[in-house]
Amino acid sequence: MSAFPHRHLLGIHDLSPFDIRAVLDLAEDYARLNQSHDKHADALRGLTQINLFFENSTRTQASFEIAGKRLGADVMNMSVGTSSVRKGETLIDTAATLNAMRPDLLVVRHHNSGAVALLSEKVNCAVLNAGDGRHEHPTQALLDALTIRRHKGRIQKLTIAICGDIANSRVARSNMLCLGKMENRVRVIAPPTLLPAGIDRFGVEVFTEMEEGLKDCDVVMMLRIQNERLEGQAVPSTREYFHRYGLTEDKLALARPDAIVMHPGPMNRGVEIDPAVADCERSVIREQVEMGVAVRMAAMDLLARNLRAERMA
Amino acid sequence: MSAFPHRHLLGIHDLSPFDIRAVLDLAEDYARLNQSHDKHADALRGLTQINLFFENSTRTQASFEIAGKRLGADVMNMSVGTSSVRKGETLIDTAATLNAMRPDLLVVRHHNSGAVALLSEKVNCAVLNAGDGRHEHPTQALLDALTIRRHKGRIQKLTIAICGDIANSRVARSNMLCLGKMENRVRVIAPPTLLPAGIDRFGVEVFTEMEEGLKDCDVVMMLRIQNERLEGQAVPSTREYFHRYGLTEDKLALARPDAIVMHPGPMNRGVEIDPAVADCERSVIREQVEMGVAVRMAAMDLLARNLRAERMA
Amino acid sequence: MSAFPHRHLLGIHDLSPFDIRAVLDLAEDYARLNQSHDKHADALRGLTQINLFFENSTRTQASFEIAGKRLGADVMNMSVGTSSVRKGETLIDTAATLNAMRPDLLVVRHHNSGAVALLSEKVNCAVLNAGDGRHEHPTQALLDALTIRRHKGRIQKLTIAICGDIANSRVARSNMLCLGKMENRVRVIAPPTLLPAGIDRFGVEVFTEMEEGLKDCDVVMMLRIQNERLEGQAVPSTREYFHRYGLTEDKLALARPDAIVMHPGPMNRGVEIDPAVADCERSVIREQVEMGVAVRMAAMDLLARNLRAERMA
Repeated sequence: MSAFPHRHLLGIHDLSPFDIRAVLDLAEDYARLNQSHDKHADALRGLTQINLFFENSTRTQASFEIAGKRLGADVMNMSVGTSSVRKGETLIDTAATLNAMRPDLLVVRHHNSGAVALLSEKVNCAVLNAGDGRHEHPTQALLDALTIRRHKGRIQKLTIAICGDIANSRVARSNMLCLGKMENRVRVIAPPTLLPAGIDRFGVEVFTEMEEGLKDCDVVMMLRIQNERLEGQAVPSTREYFHRYGLTEDKLALARPDAIVMHPGPMNRGVEIDPAVADCERSVIREQVEMGVAVRMAAMDLLARNLRAERMA
Repeated sequence: MSAFPHRHLLGIHDLSPFDIRAVLDLAEDYARLNQSHDKHADALRGLTQINLFFENSTRTQASFEIAGKRLGADVMNMSVGTSSVRKGETLIDTAATLNAMRPDLLVVRHHNSGAVALLSEKVNCAVLNAGDGRHEHPTQALLDALTIRRHKGRIQKLTIAICGDIANSRVARSNMLCLGKMENRVRVIAPPTLLPAGIDRFGVEVFTEMEEGLKDCDVVMMLRIQNERLEGQAVPSTREYFHRYGLTEDKLALARPDAIVMHPGPMNRGVEIDPAVADCERSVIREQVEMGVAVRMAAMDLLARNLRAERMA
Repeated sequence: MSAFPHRHLLGIHDLSPFDIRAVLDLAEDYARLNQSHDKHADALRGLTQINLFFENSTRTQASFEIAGKRLGADVMNMSVGTSSVRKGETLIDTAATLNAMRPDLLVVRHHNSGAVALLSEKVNCAVLNAGDGRHEHPTQALLDALTIRRHKGRIQKLTIAICGDIANSRVARSNMLCLGKMENRVRVIAPPTLLPAGIDRFGVEVFTEMEEGLKDCDVVMMLRIQNERLEGQAVPSTREYFHRYGLTEDKLALARPDAIVMHPGPMNRGVEIDPAVADCERSVIREQVEMGVAVRMAAMDLLARNLRAERMA
C-alpha cells in the first residue's frame, strides 16, 4: 500500500497521523537537498504541474513553483485575474479545460471555501489545495509541523498557542487540525470578535488574553491580521490591537524559555508582532519558508507516486 | 524534402492538404504521449520558444507553453500589456529586439490582421500565428480537424456547419479554409449582420437559419459570440440570440444522429450554446482542448526540423 | 584564485579591468553557443535563479530569463507589483523570505539607488544588479563593452561619446565607470539641465553641443530620454530636443567614418535618434541585445563557479 494513500491533498482533515509523518519524513530529505549545491531530483520528471491561483499569493505560488521545478516537472503558472474566467467562464469549465491539457498536478488557491474540493472531482490529476477561503491550507500546517519537529525533536505532547484572527484564518484551521491529530495541547488566543463559532469542536483551549494563553507554551504561532479587519468594527485599532495581542518580548517571556516564535508571513511588523521578536533568536519564521519548499516537494512526490502506480495498474 | 516545407505557420491559406495531414499524423503520436505518465520528448531540446501575446489569451498561451515544455524547449512568455510596447516601441522594433535574443520559435498573437506575417519577415526564427485580428488562427483549425478525424475516421467528404459570428471570427476563417481544402461540404449559419462581405469566395453554403443549415450535418461547430457585439446593434439581445442561434437539443436533433458538437472555447453557456448540449455525450469540446496541445507540439516539431536542416546545410 | 573574485555583481564600480575582461571573454563563447542550433549548456544545472523586479522591464528580465534557462537553471520570475510587498512587507523581509527558499542567483531591479546592495547583505546567494535607481546597471555596461570590442577589435584607447540624459541614467553611469576603467577617452554630451552634479569626478569630457562632442568619435552611444522629462521643465519639447540632441545623419557625419551607433533601448524614434540612423549599417543596436544574453550567461556562470567553490570548501 502507498505510504500516502490519497489522490489529492485537499486538507489536513483527510490525513491520518501516519500520513502526516510520511510527508514530514520525506520533506526532511528534500530540506537536505535544498541546502546542497545541485538541488535537482527527478521525482516529477515528465510530469506537468499547473499552479492555478484565483487569489494572488506570491510567496505560496513561488514555493510551489520552485518545488516543482527542482523535482523536474514542467511548471505552468496561471493567474486567473487575466484569464478566461474574466470572460465569464465557470470554475468547472476552467477545471475541465485545464484537465484536457493532461496535467498531472494541479495546485489551486481559491477565495471560496470548498472550491478546491469541488474542482478535484472534475479532473483526472492530483489536486493540491494551496488555500481555499477560510477552510484549509494544508501545506502551511505541514510546514509548520516540520519546523516544530526540527526544533522540539517531536511533534506531539507540546503546548502550542495560535494567536490572532482565528475566525478568518485557514492557517489556524489547518494547524488546529494537524496539531490536534498529533496529540498536542492546542490553545487559541484571540479577541472574542475574532473567534469562530463552534471553536469548541476543535478540542482546543480558548483564551482571550495573551497573558494567560502564553503561559508555559512550547510554541507561539502568530497569525497575520488583515488591515481591513482592523479598519472595520471587529477590533478597535492597529495600536490597540498591538497593545493587547501583538507579540512583544514581555509577553513572550511568559512562554517557556525555549519557546519558538512562528508566523506564516507576510508579517505586519508592529501590528501582530514586534519587530524585535520577529528577528530574535527564537523566531523560526525564515525556517518556515524554507520548510515550505521541502514540504511541497514531498507532498507532490507522494501524490505523483500514487498517480504512477495507478497508471501502471 | 521536408514533410512540411514551410518556415512559418502563418495561416491555413499557405498549407496543402498534404501539409495538413503531416501535422495531424504527427499530432496523433503526441496525443498518445500526452496520455502517458512521462510526457517528455526531446524534439525542441536546446531551443528557445517565446510566446509573444499582444492580446490576452490564457488558454491558447497555456496550450503552446505546455506543448513547448513537453518537447524540452526553454519557454518564455511575454505579455505585451506590461512591456516596452507601452513605452512606444513599434511592433518591428519589438520583433527585432526579440530576434536578437536568438529564439528558435516565436508564437505570436496580435489584434491586427496581418501583423504576424509582417513580423515574420523581420526575424530569423520560425513564427507561429496564434491568432491575428480577424485573419487566421491556424492551430485552432488544425486541432479541430484532428478532433473531427478521430471521431469520424476521416477529414473529408463530411458536412460541417460553422455557426455564429462568422464575420469577426478568425477561427471561422481558418476552419473554412482548412475544411474546404480537405474537400468537405462546409456550411456557415449566421444572422445576416454577422456574415462577412465576400463570403462566397470561400466556397461555402450560407444559411441564416439554424433549422435549415443544421440538417444532416456530421459536425456542428459553434463560435463564441462576443458580448460586446450583442450589446451593439449587430444582433438584438442575448436572449433573442440564444433563441435563434443558440445550439439546443431541439436544434441539434436536426443534424445526423451521430453528429458531434464543437466549440473553440471559452463558452458563453446560455448564449451560443445550451449548457445541456455543451456537456452532452456528443460534445467533443474537451477533446478539442486536448488535441490543441498535441497539434501545437506537432507544428513546432515540424518547423524545428526545418530549422535544423537549414542550419546544418 | 577565481577569474572573477566576487560574490555579487552589484556595479562596475567594484570590478577591475581584469574582471571585466573575464566576463567579456566568457561571453564570447556564449555568443557562439547562442548562434548554434542547440543552445544548451549545463553551467547552472540544479541551481535556482529568481528574477526579482520591483520595476517593470520586459527586455532586461527576458534577457536574464533566457540566459538562465539556456544554462539549465530553474528560473522563477517575481514581478513585485503583484506580490506581498503590496501587503506592506519591507524590502528586507522580502529578501529574507526569498533567501529562505534557497535560491543560488538573485537578479534584482529596484527603483532606489543602493537597494540592491542593501539586499545583497541579507542573503546567502549571489546577487546581480539589473538596475537600481540612478546608480548602476552593470550588465548593460558589460554588454556595451563586448559589442564595442567586437566591432573595434579592442575596448581601450577609443573615443566614446555618451549622449542624452546623463543626470538620470544608470546606463550612463555604469558605462562611464566601465569605459573609464578600460582607459578610453569618454565624453558626455547633454543639455546643462541633464548633466549631474559632480560629473567631473568621472574623468570625462563634458560637452553641451553635439556638434562639438561628436567630432572624431569611434563610438556614439545614445541614451533613452524619458518623455516625462520632456514634458517637465528640464528640456523644452520633443521637437526641440530632437533638433539639438537627436542623432541624425548630419550629426553622425562629424564622428569618425567607421563610428558605430549604440542605444540601450527601447528607442524613442524621432526623439533622441532619427529612425534612419537607428536602422543604418553603422547601428549595432540589435547586436547589443544579442550580447546582452551572452554577457548575462557569462556573469551568472562566473558567480555560480564561486558559489560552488565556496560550498565545496
